[in-house]
Amino acid sequence: MLAMHHQIVALSILLLGLAPNLFASGFSLDVTSSSSKTHKSAAADTSERTSRIAIVGAGAVGSYYGGRIWESVRCSNSTDVLFHLRNEHYAHCVENGITVTSIDGNFVISSDELLAYSTTEDMAKSVKDEDDDSHAFDWVIVALKSSSLDAVPELIKPLTSPETRVLVIMNGLIEDDLTEMMREEQGLECKAVYGGMALICSNRLSPGVIDHSYAGKLVVGVAYSADADDDGYCKWVESDKKAIMDLFEPVTPVPFEFEDNLLRGRWWKNCWNLPFNGISVAMGGITTDRIVGDPSLRKLAYKVMDETIATANADLAKHGFPEEDYLPEDTREKMMVFTDTMGAYKPSTMLDLHARKPMEVKYLFKTALDRATKLGVPVPHLETLVSQIEAFQRHYKLY
Amino acid sequence: MLAMHHQIVALSILLLGLAPNLFASGFSLDVTSSSSKTHKSAAADTSERTSRIAIVGAGAVGSYYGGRIWESVRCSNSTDVLFHLRNEHYAHCVENGITVTSIDGNFVISSDELLAYSTTEDMAKSVKDEDDDSHAFDWVIVALKSSSLDAVPELIKPLTSPETRVLVIMNGLIEDDLTEMMREEQGLECKAVYGGMALICSNRLSPGVIDHSYAGKLVVGVAYSADADDDGYCKWVESDKKAIMDLFEPVTPVPFEFEDNLLRGRWWKNCWNLPFNGISVAMGGITTDRIVGDPSLRKLAYKVMDETIATANADLAKHGFPEEDYLPEDTREKMMVFTDTMGAYKPSTMLDLHARKPMEVKYLFKTALDRATKLGVPVPHLETLVSQIEAFQRHYKLY
Repeated sequence: MLAMHHQIVALSILLLGLAPNLFASGFSLDVTSSSSKTHKSAAADTSERTSRIAIVGAGAVGSYYGGRIWESVRCSNSTDVLFHLRNEHYAHCVENGITVTSIDGNFVISSDELLAYSTTEDMAKSVKDEDDDSHAFDWVIVALKSSSLDAVPELIKPLTSPETRVLVIMNGLIEDDLTEMMREEQGLECKAVYGGMALICSNRLSPGVIDHSYAGKLVVGVAYSADADDDGYCKWVESDKKAIMDLFEPVTPVPFEFEDNLLRGRWWKNCWNLPFNGISVAMGGITTDRIVGDPSLRKLAYKVMDETIATANADLAKHGFPEEDYLPEDTREKMMVFTDTMGAYKPSTMLDLHARKPMEVKYLFKTALDRATKLGVPVPHLETLVSQIEAFQRHYKLY
Repeated sequence: MLAMHHQIVALSILLLGLAPNLFASGFSLDVTSSSSKTHKSAAADTSERTSRIAIVGAGAVGSYYGGRIWESVRCSNSTDVLFHLRNEHYAHCVENGITVTSIDGNFVISSDELLAYSTTEDMAKSVKDEDDDSHAFDWVIVALKSSSLDAVPELIKPLTSPETRVLVIMNGLIEDDLTEMMREEQGLECKAVYGGMALICSNRLSPGVIDHSYAGKLVVGVAYSADADDDGYCKWVESDKKAIMDLFEPVTPVPFEFEDNLLRGRWWKNCWNLPFNGISVAMGGITTDRIVGDPSLRKLAYKVMDETIATANADLAKHGFPEEDYLPEDTREKMMVFTDTMGAYKPSTMLDLHARKPMEVKYLFKTALDRATKLGVPVPHLETLVSQIEAFQRHYKLY
């Protein structure tokens, strides 16, 4: 359970210094900073309180989902969607807005309409004087790479209140560490933490330009709920489910699914991530069509999926979930068929390897491998791939 | 047992057409071909019969061992060493000889001293009229890549007689297929077939220029003996051992060891080849220092060696060899320590991958994997690497 203290952490700048990729520039605590922006709420003229949604780390995934939510609320006066963008992406979007090409319909958030902020402090300050509940964002949606997970609590702290719901649309088995960090290190309180699994193909082509080429489901489950009687793993109450359904049901272009069991959802996503990100990167960075199209790599992908499903079900069993919550055997075939239709897709870790950027090795690969080891599930094919991926990570220093 | 028929195979040219990399040019049956050479025996003036050694496929390994043998006999009048060289290598060496830089002492075979032939037919013709036993080469030493194994029987046929001993210094579990092809397809008869395992680092830097940077043992065992009563696996008689000892004992710079059990010898070499060629190529072609120097790849190399040793010992057991013939557990540590001293060595398969040349996938990797499968020995780490290597092979068409 997350602690109920909201405290100022004097180490902000120091801690942020530990995540140089997150804040290579533009970080400032100065309210007069040129990167701050005065935000005039859409609901400023009404007595009704404005709903506020913060998109933190608006890259390929965050811009897409944030943009779709923005689309669905833009004609109402009740909800604002604020985007946190970094470095050249911030500078570009302030001038040019965000352009999304999507197989489900293109859209543009013009620079006039875009509420863009280069720091979450500026984002918080922009809404500060509007009402008493000064920092209250209803939703904070985080879509960073899991290699930046350590910086997330610090980053979202200015935006959260005990009523805030946090959704992390990120890869990997992150929730244990995230809630631990939020609670232990930040004393961060919020209403609930959700984990989102996005089975989409979305790439940032250049600053402010996103291409969304495949539309799979967004699956969301609950990692933590302040309202649940039992603070056990993935527990939630009906109001938690209602809140996320209310958020995404109006967003019609996004196929949304509530996942009762976030742990199962995470493993379900891993059934794609481990074989396809894994083989792609272990092979030096190849597109998914080369995996599904090559007889021996296709067979290897199946084996890694089998190992993933075995580990998933052992993990679900260990957490006391009943057999009906286990991943069904046809998960592997569904993932393969799905990938067959993706074309020459570049998994995110492949893009990182090629761009010599930090790879999501820890939460995407290592945590799954460690969990299999602890559970006594043999995963030698996955283990081989992870050895290779870690070697690439060390060789190119992609931390 | 090899059949005792010596027959003309009309399909010669057709069969050679199946191995384009072996004979990209220069193949000719014409005795007046410019590539033929009239060979004046060193022993032409004496009544004693000259010993003749043919080095077939004189690349990095063949030129080194052939050159060392040539060095040891050059001052005698009793032995000739003839080199079979291909394409630009032949053309270059006819003009410039062969230059070997070696940590055990450099040497040069000058163009005047070098007996070079571009086809084995020319090689055979060059000695034809000297005595009755026209085609009699005492030794035919083959040092081709195992990806050319299918062409070997056809290639050495002009050189062999029932008294010829054949030594194949090649990678992988080749002997079953080689003796089968020699017997069934070519009716080739010879005194004995030996398999050689060379744990050296030797690279051809350019045509006729060889660099020998690490001097491990040459280990040789018997694959087939015409004189053995029992034509079982790896059977031999004392005269077979004496013959190879007589050949190599005078060659003092070469640390030589007779291996009683060729099957064990092959697996011993595989304990190096499978992890180090395997991981190198699966990683897209990296040098061995990056394998032993990286924590996770080093661990992976140990795991592949463990799998190799388990398969080796199961294979030795299946062939009826006693436990004292099994590979000892310290093989893995010896191979690792050996590799620690090699520096940034480029395994042969890595060179092939980078040069986009045929890779020795079948005999170096696939045969070992298939044998493990048949023996019921789990080798998932090796299996993963081979899946990746086969994918590279298919992608770049390195057949």
